[in-house]
Amino acid sequence: MVGAGLVGCLTACYLARRKYEVTLYERRPDPREAAPERGRSINLAISERGIDALRRIGLDETVLKVALPMPGRMMHAPDGTLSFQPYSAGGRRAINSISRSELNRTLLDAALGMPGVRALFEHRLTGLDVDSGRMDFDTPGGPVIRAAPVVLAADGAYSAVRGRLRFLPGFDVSQEYLDYGYKELTIPARDGRFALDPGALHIWPRGKAMMVALPNPDRSFTCTLFWPESGPGSFAELDTARRFEEFFAANYADARALMPDLAGDYAHNPVGHLVTVRARPWHVHGTAGAVVGLLGDAAHAIVPFYGQGANCGFEDCVELDRCLEETGDDFPRALAMYGARRKEHADTIAELALENFVEMRDKVASPSFLLRKRVEHGLERLLPGVYVSRYELVSFSTVPYAEIRRRISRQRGAVVAGALGALAVVAVAARALRRR
Amino acid sequence: MVGAGLVGCLTACYLARRKYEVTLYERRPDPREAAPERGRSINLAISERGIDALRRIGLDETVLKVALPMPGRMMHAPDGTLSFQPYSAGGRRAINSISRSELNRTLLDAALGMPGVRALFEHRLTGLDVDSGRMDFDTPGGPVIRAAPVVLAADGAYSAVRGRLRFLPGFDVSQEYLDYGYKELTIPARDGRFALDPGALHIWPRGKAMMVALPNPDRSFTCTLFWPESGPGSFAELDTARRFEEFFAANYADARALMPDLAGDYAHNPVGHLVTVRARPWHVHGTAGAVVGLLGDAAHAIVPFYGQGANCGFEDCVELDRCLEETGDDFPRALAMYGARRKEHADTIAELALENFVEMRDKVASPSFLLRKRVEHGLERLLPGVYVSRYELVSFSTVPYAEIRRRISRQRGAVVAGALGALAVVAVAARALRRR
Repeated sequence: MVGAGLVGCLTACYLARRKYEVTLYERRPDPREAAPERGRSINLAISERGIDALRRIGLDETVLKVALPMPGRMMHAPDGTLSFQPYSAGGRRAINSISRSELNRTLLDAALGMPGVRALFEHRLTGLDVDSGRMDFDTPGGPVIRAAPVVLAADGAYSAVRGRLRFLPGFDVSQEYLDYGYKELTIPARDGRFALDPGALHIWPRGKAMMVALPNPDRSFTCTLFWPESGPGSFAELDTARRFEEFFAANYADARALMPDLAGDYAHNPVGHLVTVRARPWHVHGTAGAVVGLLGDAAHAIVPFYGQGANCGFEDCVELDRCLEETGDDFPRALAMYGARRKEHADTIAELALENFVEMRDKVASPSFLLRKRVEHGLERLLPGVYVSRYELVSFSTVPYAEIRRRISRQRGAVVAGALGALAVVAVAARALRRR
Repeated sequence: MVGAGLVGCLTACYLARRKYEVTLYERRPDPREAAPERGRSINLAISERGIDALRRIGLDETVLKVALPMPGRMMHAPDGTLSFQPYSAGGRRAINSISRSELNRTLLDAALGMPGVRALFEHRLTGLDVDSGRMDFDTPGGPVIRAAPVVLAADGAYSAVRGRLRFLPGFDVSQEYLDYGYKELTIPARDGRFALDPGALHIWPRGKAMMVALPNPDRSFTCTLFWPESGPGSFAELDTARRFEEFFAANYADARALMPDLAGDYAHNPVGHLVTVRARPWHVHGTAGAVVGLLGDAAHAIVPFYGQGANCGFEDCVELDRCLEETGDDFPRALAMYGARRKEHADTIAELALENFVEMRDKVASPSFLLRKRVEHGLERLLPGVYVSRYELVSFSTVPYAEIRRRISRQRGAVVAGALGALAVVAVAARALRRR
């Protein structure tokens, strides 16, 4: 397993349960000993898909214990006005804020607690022979050569393994950046308390830009500012501490008041980038019998605006496990089946995540959007289990992503037909009344 | 200049004319000393765009001297029936068959004949520092380090330079393979004569597959067989010499009779792959003042079905030269301007080339296609300079590719409107006649 991040560790758990010996090779130092990288977290929102994957291996309770439920979004208008939108009818369901490093440590502990799993840190993959499964690593102790009949890669959006596969004929791959960067900021606890309502994902929608904030167990909030890379109100334009702070204070006044160390965050936290990666196929069967597979961001990195990156990656683990079960642990066949089943769903959530960025930064603040949400929640109450919004299906079900797109399209057709039918009934009734 | 292929050499000519010192670094051995790679040629068809680029630097006559004009396509039906379609009304215009290696040697000689140009062969790029312009090469004499304030890359579809740029945030790149492979076959001269009409590009359209043949000055034909990678009638299915030959003889009987060494070609010529590469941006301005730019296939590799790969690459050289002129030789600004102008045209020809594969292997054999071509040529004669077919605009003009797409769309609208108008006139006239 190349990569001991979220998906690598969870895959190791699933494989260990199938009695495989698993070695995790990780480029970074042991996260249990090192401090997390500053400003690179983007807090995660674990929702039903991720929880389902954790539940199947008995880890859901351990993880949810250190998570904070967010049953809705809290919008911050430029004048500081707050408005809350539940994610589900009645706000009964919640997505769960958790720090990436916390979750990673939990999953790593779980993996290493299972028989046959070990982890080697500070192993950076520099070479891979797809045919034989030979891997070359750079380590602090010098170069290391390893080999494995099955090489699985969950080494992230900038996957070194995928970087090797791209030289194979027939391997399609694309990387596409959004013209937006992000910067992490912090709202610390105030007098030991949360400075904002911890029961919500906070959003500052600002048209072409936005900020979000997710609560942490230490009662701070991790904020992520999404700004254009260039043009008005961009990181390129606001490129000094003073310009940045002035613009920020003018547009995010209520948050600014809660950020005593804004200058420090600006100076120390890098501007991150947002990339969508698509690849095909997700596995290669080498001529000398080895097989290489991709999971998680290495196969399908997406932008974070639907809170589904880790959830989607965890679904990969479940599907691979299912395919191994169905093929009697025939890895080449299982990986081919896993890729064939998962690809369209990964492509769909990639699109939905890009679309949701527009919704979050722009539409959530509009009256027509708020009205639509109220109508949707009304329909959900009137037709429980029949009418379900896209957000709910993505976040609170395990219906495959591509199915959701088809279902929502049918549902919209039915609602329009129903509305027209209702209108017709009203019109006929009105005419009948008039004739009297 | 990384890459001394077609576009690299022509760019060197243009830069030398602007008084720059140019070093060409080429991975391969000197083509003037080595034999061309077997089975990798795909003969080129040079048409107006390429000729225009050569003409501007005085190389058109030298190149066309070793090329053979093809004024139309010759279709070979499965039963051996031939039918000729001129590419332009009256067959007045021709695309020109030339071997890639021949053209490459001609352009290399031209470049090295200009003051300030030199070439270093067997220099494989292994590293590039975008900021400083430092390049690392592997050579037979060991590693070599060079630096240049301007690094231009015309190192092909699998560009090593582009491979470095992909690590930069904001660099979008995709590679997309067609599910088709190709294999080169040969029809040798018969008793010192061409075995087929040398005044045509020969096509064997076979629905999901096809073969083309282009004439060579030595009176042989270079054939390229395009077959699916897998499924019925694919390279994967027909994977022994016997299966291959039987299937080939059954479906390409007239060509089979002209190929005495089919077995040898099958055994020695590899199956090639067809990739479309898109990238953005095409240049990077390093922090330490260096600038890196991409040209030709390195920026926009396309499939060969419109015969435009080299022609499009040559247009890059002209545009870069124009941008240098307009900016007073300010390389960073010129490269930015060149990329901004060329990108949509490269994207358009990539799409047209993919679409034309379907036309060549499938539609060219259909009666409705033949009728459409006759109507088009009729309109071209009736409305000279007003109605021009897409093929003509692509092959026999220098109208930018994206303009062609817009113009054809307007033209189709006008033809439909005209046809409806004509129909209305006829209908009115018929009614008037009936009333009498």
